[in-house]
Amino acid sequence: MACFLKYPKYCDYPIENLPYGVFSTPSNPSHRIGVAIADVILDLSQVAHLFTGPELNRYQNVFKEATLNNFMALNPKAWKEARETIQSLLSVNNTSLQNDAHLQSRAFIPQSDAIMHLPAKIGDYTDFYSSIHHATNVGSMFRSRESALMPNWKYLPVGYHGRASSVVISGTPIHRPHGQILLADGTPPVFGTSKLMDFELEMAFFVGGSTKFGEPIPIQSAHEHVFGFVIMNDWSARDIQKWEYVPLGPFTAKNLGTSISPWVVTTFALKPFIVDNYSQDPEPLPYLKHSDNYNFDISLQVDITPKGTNVSTTVCRSNFKYLYWTVKQQLAHHTITGCNVNPGDLMGSGTISGDTSDSFGSLLELSWKGTKPLTLLDGSQRKFLADGDTVTMKAVCEGDSYNIGFGTCVGTLLPAIVR
Amino acid sequence: MACFLKYPKYCDYPIENLPYGVFSTPSNPSHRIGVAIADVILDLSQVAHLFTGPELNRYQNVFKEATLNNFMALNPKAWKEARETIQSLLSVNNTSLQNDAHLQSRAFIPQSDAIMHLPAKIGDYTDFYSSIHHATNVGSMFRSRESALMPNWKYLPVGYHGRASSVVISGTPIHRPHGQILLADGTPPVFGTSKLMDFELEMAFFVGGSTKFGEPIPIQSAHEHVFGFVIMNDWSARDIQKWEYVPLGPFTAKNLGTSISPWVVTTFALKPFIVDNYSQDPEPLPYLKHSDNYNFDISLQVDITPKGTNVSTTVCRSNFKYLYWTVKQQLAHHTITGCNVNPGDLMGSGTISGDTSDSFGSLLELSWKGTKPLTLLDGSQRKFLADGDTVTMKAVCEGDSYNIGFGTCVGTLLPAIVR
Repeated sequence: MACFLKYPKYCDYPIENLPYGVFSTPSNPSHRIGVAIADVILDLSQVAHLFTGPELNRYQNVFKEATLNNFMALNPKAWKEARETIQSLLSVNNTSLQNDAHLQSRAFIPQSDAIMHLPAKIGDYTDFYSSIHHATNVGSMFRSRESALMPNWKYLPVGYHGRASSVVISGTPIHRPHGQILLADGTPPVFGTSKLMDFELEMAFFVGGSTKFGEPIPIQSAHEHVFGFVIMNDWSARDIQKWEYVPLGPFTAKNLGTSISPWVVTTFALKPFIVDNYSQDPEPLPYLKHSDNYNFDISLQVDITPKGTNVSTTVCRSNFKYLYWTVKQQLAHHTITGCNVNPGDLMGSGTISGDTSDSFGSLLELSWKGTKPLTLLDGSQRKFLADGDTVTMKAVCEGDSYNIGFGTCVGTLLPAIVR
Repeated sequence: MACFLKYPKYCDYPIENLPYGVFSTPSNPSHRIGVAIADVILDLSQVAHLFTGPELNRYQNVFKEATLNNFMALNPKAWKEARETIQSLLSVNNTSLQNDAHLQSRAFIPQSDAIMHLPAKIGDYTDFYSSIHHATNVGSMFRSRESALMPNWKYLPVGYHGRASSVVISGTPIHRPHGQILLADGTPPVFGTSKLMDFELEMAFFVGGSTKFGEPIPIQSAHEHVFGFVIMNDWSARDIQKWEYVPLGPFTAKNLGTSISPWVVTTFALKPFIVDNYSQDPEPLPYLKHSDNYNFDISLQVDITPKGTNVSTTVCRSNFKYLYWTVKQQLAHHTITGCNVNPGDLMGSGTISGDTSDSFGSLLELSWKGTKPLTLLDGSQRKFLADGDTVTMKAVCEGDSYNIGFGTCVGTLLPAIVR
């Protein structure tokens, strides 16, 4: 598939990728939908009239919206037609856009000029806990290696409802929060700034389509509700979390902010990178059982860049494929009692850790609860994040002839606000 | 304050109440905003032009919306002016509506003709756990009376993020769900229908106004974000909950449906029913401390009506005032690490139990984990809900010269769907 735009072979956004995002520009602050191609954005609001296929000719308006929700509300057939239409528009074999300098001048925006926004209005946000290595690490630290996994962990994809309002776009700074912290068992908690700020390396998918209240999603068709994926940093205040989370789960330790990358990579682009599902023992219950592979080989990386340096240290290399539970299983479980889903709902994977100590997806694990400080390339040490640290997460599918890049999910931890 | 409409002295919706809701009619299916007065609804879309005060004359359109969100997005001054405008319109001393038969014919709709809808698009839904008697009961059952309350419980209003999409309007039936259940420790879980379906008697408030990401709500001004209250039934599948909830909290056991009553009673109407806050020991940390009373005397009641009978049994009489944590404290805590709130966010109280066994707000407590079955007036027994049971929750502030009624929150548990 050849694109009339030139780009390096292994760039993040070749014609095989075509992730969707929402952007504005300094000269035009209205939010609009675009597709990343090479180092530019194709502004879909400018080419909406070219979506003339049978699925989309009545729905061209979805490309003129300020969020992707109405496009996500369609179905896999429509999403496929959109992808094929865009690929055709960008193809060397198609002259309609290629030879229309005027349209190009309106429709192509350099990515460097764009301000990215949340791709969708997120109705509900759920976070799973689907990495067996992460759950085992955390369980080992707080209980013991033998009883690391809770009895339910291998029977169902454990998850919880998160806060949708505080999901923010990559680049949004996060302030070190204040909150309640227990310094020693048996003493009263104190109020202060979190000392144990952490990142969590996750990926998340946006739900496409919707379901009716009371109707579970059958595992066989769960993939039809997976629109596409982003990188996610589930910032966590470990000291606040430890004190508050029993018995109803994390609350203010997580709702301080959750960052996502701006480009939503569709399942079509990920298809060549499908790999075997993680081997599951015991066998899942029938409502969670599917025989098709729905796991993805996506290389993940976390870098920390201390304030005032240009020295980034890669502190973690992991991979989406280490997840024990598939997103099909997550969706089937989420809805089994009748919970309905809506387009734009966001579903996080949970921290994605591999089985080696350099693949752990959080500082909690990398520094093993602070007992093994990391030394960064600038010589400084980290048990948890320091004020001014910029955390950069990258995700990419590395193919033989092209990559499918997710770009980055970036955030800087700023000092606590003095009130 | 005299209304030109006649109604019984202790009806739910006197001129001192004026709760807001969203309704439609069989002849006009568009959703519109109304105010309950006596046994009719004042359709605000028909009288929007009469909101000519300084706060609202530029915002009359908020009364022509299909949800209350944009009205909730205003501020206490605007809400107060709206209330005063409506009271004036309905007053015996004002002839503008009273003597305009044509306008009355358009603006008044019998409540019995109306179909009620969710009053707002709920962006995020949070559920607290703020009743000390409920938390103590649950803790006693599953641990021991001595260690019933978790160490954090008296230091912070424990809460968790719930599922907004499955909040439904009173009257929506709930099907008994399927899910994973552990029959005996050490055995694998089984898939089946929940056998331990329960209600939870709660109240919830809608957030008014919004805050910026990163900015906690100071306790001193937290009341400015409390728009009004509804009754809530947090349906719970106890057997599913018990197996799934460790360590991240309830998930599919709760997202099967949460019912709310349709009329949002404002804090203005509740003011005469403010009572002392629950006595708190230890003293809360400064960010949770407020000296003004912000607790409410609201009588609560739960009735169960078995299928095919007209025999309702009151199984619980409780009161909002038993809550240990105030909603001001809930809001201050919810946002302390920087979580932003939006108009239309819903915040549940948690099950409201009193200290006597007939005031417990769930069957789990009323039947003490199934060990003390209740006998209903039709002679049948209940440990948990039976198929066909209709659960009716009522809330009312009982005053000397008038009541402030919340109406009812009703739901019927239907049998599981055979798939």
